[in-house]
Amino acid sequence: MKRTEISSLGEFGLIRHLTDCVRLKNPGTLKGIGDDAAVISFDEGMKALVTTDMLLEGIHFDLTYTPLKHLGYKSAVVNFSDIYAMNGTPRQLTVSIGVSARFSVEDIEQIYQGILTACDVYGVDLVGGDTSASLTGLCLSLTCIGEAREEEIVYRNGAKPTDLICVSGDLGAAYMGLQLLEREKAVYRGEKDFAPDFAGHEYILERQLKPEARKDIVEKLRSAGIKPTAMMDISDGLSSELLHIAHAGKVGIRIYDDKLPIDYQTAAMAEEFNMNLSTAALNGGEDYELLFTVPLARLDDIQRIEGIRLIGHITEEADGHVLVARDGTEITLVAQGWNAAKALNG
Amino acid sequence: MKRTEISSLGEFGLIRHLTDCVRLKNPGTLKGIGDDAAVISFDEGMKALVTTDMLLEGIHFDLTYTPLKHLGYKSAVVNFSDIYAMNGTPRQLTVSIGVSARFSVEDIEQIYQGILTACDVYGVDLVGGDTSASLTGLCLSLTCIGEAREEEIVYRNGAKPTDLICVSGDLGAAYMGLQLLEREKAVYRGEKDFAPDFAGHEYILERQLKPEARKDIVEKLRSAGIKPTAMMDISDGLSSELLHIAHAGKVGIRIYDDKLPIDYQTAAMAEEFNMNLSTAALNGGEDYELLFTVPLARLDDIQRIEGIRLIGHITEEADGHVLVARDGTEITLVAQGWNAAKALNG
Repeated sequence: MKRTEISSLGEFGLIRHLTDCVRLKNPGTLKGIGDDAAVISFDEGMKALVTTDMLLEGIHFDLTYTPLKHLGYKSAVVNFSDIYAMNGTPRQLTVSIGVSARFSVEDIEQIYQGILTACDVYGVDLVGGDTSASLTGLCLSLTCIGEAREEEIVYRNGAKPTDLICVSGDLGAAYMGLQLLEREKAVYRGEKDFAPDFAGHEYILERQLKPEARKDIVEKLRSAGIKPTAMMDISDGLSSELLHIAHAGKVGIRIYDDKLPIDYQTAAMAEEFNMNLSTAALNGGEDYELLFTVPLARLDDIQRIEGIRLIGHITEEADGHVLVARDGTEITLVAQGWNAAKALNG
Repeated sequence: MKRTEISSLGEFGLIRHLTDCVRLKNPGTLKGIGDDAAVISFDEGMKALVTTDMLLEGIHFDLTYTPLKHLGYKSAVVNFSDIYAMNGTPRQLTVSIGVSARFSVEDIEQIYQGILTACDVYGVDLVGGDTSASLTGLCLSLTCIGEAREEEIVYRNGAKPTDLICVSGDLGAAYMGLQLLEREKAVYRGEKDFAPDFAGHEYILERQLKPEARKDIVEKLRSAGIKPTAMMDISDGLSSELLHIAHAGKVGIRIYDDKLPIDYQTAAMAEEFNMNLSTAALNGGEDYELLFTVPLARLDDIQRIEGIRLIGHITEEADGHVLVARDGTEITLVAQGWNAAKALNG
């Protein structure tokens, strides 16, 4: 593969090179890349939503098995996911990248291609950022601006006793994908002609390497006229997020182990690793599914929407945070966030 | 000094600890830290301005001589400076920090104290961010949201022939401060009881370690009813920024060496280092002064404002980018950005 040194393009040349193909899609983006700041317009009644995420090599990703394009895609999508979790629409993105001399222009192009693909898929404009040298490794920091009507915004703190607790998609797959990638990396250790054993594990690998944000679920809820009472995206694991909703709303939680949505590949992998499946689903992290609560009165409506699972209900605060196991035992939910990064927002 | 390990507080505990004292100041900040995204409201006619900056240890700062509190302050101020350079007002800030195990809770507190002090001075709300582990060193990424009426926004591309080229404050001081700090660091090299030679150099050290954004200049221009035709902040050096204004506006530049504003301490330090003073002023970087152009008709008004220096005027594009030396020689301006980081915005 061709390798162009970053120094050969010059710093401004690199930026022009990377952002030449950026076309603005949103009428609200009045000015994108190229000035001291981007300029954004919001229609009357619209509020701005702002979320940010930092991804560091060796902490949040391992380039041994993470293609740079996927990394770019994922770094954008995890920000979009936070905007959807507010019941909003992502519109603009800024990207700051720190790269050591180990990376070539082609490497950074790959990251940008991933980011710009995600922007195309989700209708978001890349409006600014930094590209900077770093002494060691790769560092990505993205900030997403979204919008929502004030009355549509869903916070974490609105859950009320008797509300239904809902989850989109399935849980634990990204975590099991990570376990598989780590195992194959350990087996590999520089071996020539190494062929990793990925057959039949495509779904969990994709969940780890190329997650999607649940734009579709937010749209389906809107079409059905359902506004969740509380909502978050699941980035640190279901348990951790449930406790956020409980603390923010001063309510109790009661969920059922046998209701947790888990894909067949996730279950098979957990068995192969001799891991507890519920633990993976509860604490796995990086699912980027939506966790939300809706009033009990909307039970029929919510059941009609494909891709949403009811996993329990909100209780009084005094009733605590309870996981009901398959044998009926009640276990207190504990947050075991798997991730080194804890977001203030997101 | 007390040292608390980050692990002892827990990740969410650390965030609560750092952000407990954050009080929101702007009515437009509807929701700050504590949800998937911050929520911001803009009054009718107001546009959002967004700028972002990444600061990496060993590239943008050296902790040998940079106090962490100053680093926090500066990292916020450089973002505010970009918003003022659009003729806007900074309102909200997000902060992502990556820290290795070398840093304690007290260290991160120092950084946050600096950031929050800057937020207080400039009336900005801290509304979100990340705190994350890193494998090596310290990494800061900040995004600032500002606002401005659409008709007040000043872009880089509005300069017209005969416009006056103006600069606030003085130039080259931050660069000479950096040279001094680097020299004393080289002399120090682990020596015990080392007393760096900083007497009489307070101004250039402060310009390097604790720069301010020129909020005052933006306000004075507004009071005088002067809207610049083009404006930027000087972060990469005057030459580099002048060429941005020239290219964006498709105009020529003519500036005069003997008009460049330079402080006495900067000149004395340059002499001590046997450096060309004009080179320091033209290419030094990190001045965070405002570079702007105003119509020739506003000559009298602009001269009445303290702290602004006229350094030349805009010419036709065909006339090129000219520095007129003290002896009348004409030299072509070249960008020699000193900084490893080149911003897409900012």
